[in-house]
Amino acid sequence: MSKQGLPVIQPLAGDACGTACRTPLACEPLGQDEAEELAPLFKAIADPVRLRLLSLIACHEGGEACVCDLTDAFDLTAPTISHHLKVLRKAGLIDCERRGTWVYYWINPGALERLSAILGPRVAAGA
Amino acid sequence: MSKQGLPVIQPLAGDACGTACRTPLACEPLGQDEAEELAPLFKAIADPVRLRLLSLIACHEGGEACVCDLTDAFDLTAPTISHHLKVLRKAGLIDCERRGTWVYYWINPGALERLSAILGPRVAAGA
Repeated sequence: MSKQGLPVIQPLAGDACGTACRTPLACEPLGQDEAEELAPLFKAIADPVRLRLLSLIACHEGGEACVCDLTDAFDLTAPTISHHLKVLRKAGLIDCERRGTWVYYWINPGALERLSAILGPRVAAGA
Repeated sequence: MSKQGLPVIQPLAGDACGTACRTPLACEPLGQDEAEELAPLFKAIADPVRLRLLSLIACHEGGEACVCDLTDAFDLTAPTISHHLKVLRKAGLIDCERRGTWVYYWINPGALERLSAILGPRVAAGA
C-alpha cells in the first residue's frame, strides 16, 4: 500500500462538509435500514466484559486467542464467558475455529472498522 | 494544523503492534475501569432511533438542530423523541440549550471520537 493512498484524518469542521467527507453519521442523515443494521453491533459491544474480550482477542499474539486464555483473564465462569463470546460471534464481530481441545477466536476487523468509521472524524481520501 | 501533524490511518497488522500504535482496543488489553466507562456510551448509541438522531444533529446546518426538526423526521411522538435525546444527553454524547420556545441540540464531538478511536484502525502519529 503506497503512502499516498492512505487516508488522512481531518478534524470535524462543525457545519461545513466538503466533498471529501467520508463520515456517514456527520455528513448525511443515516437511513433507517443502516441504523437498524448498526444498532445490534453497538449493542453487542455495549458491555464491559465483551469490550474486554474483544480487546484481549485483538491484542493476543498472532491476532487470535484460545478460549482458555480468555476465561483465565476474568473472575467469571466459563459458561458466562462462552455466552459473551457467542453474542460477539452472532453479531459478526469475532469468528472462531475448534482445533483439538480448544476453540480459537479472532476479530473480524471489517466489522470494528465499520463501527469506527461511522462515528469517527472525517477521513479525506488522498489529503 | 500542519499536514505533518495529521495522523495517518494504518491498516491493522494482526499480531505486530509497533510503538506508534494508538488503538487501545487492539494494542493493549482494555482495563476493567475503562471498559465500564465505555460500555454505557455504546449502549446509548445501540438503538436505531438514537443513531439516526445523532446523525440528524451532526448533519444539520450549523452543527445544531432544533428539537422541532428532529421530531418531524420520525414517525414517533414528541415524548418518545425526547426520551431518546435524554439518553444521548445523559451519556454525554450530545448537549443542548433552550432558546425561546425550542431546545437546540449539538454533538459533543469528543465523545464520538473517543468511541471511534477505541474501535478504529491503528493511527500512527507523524507517519
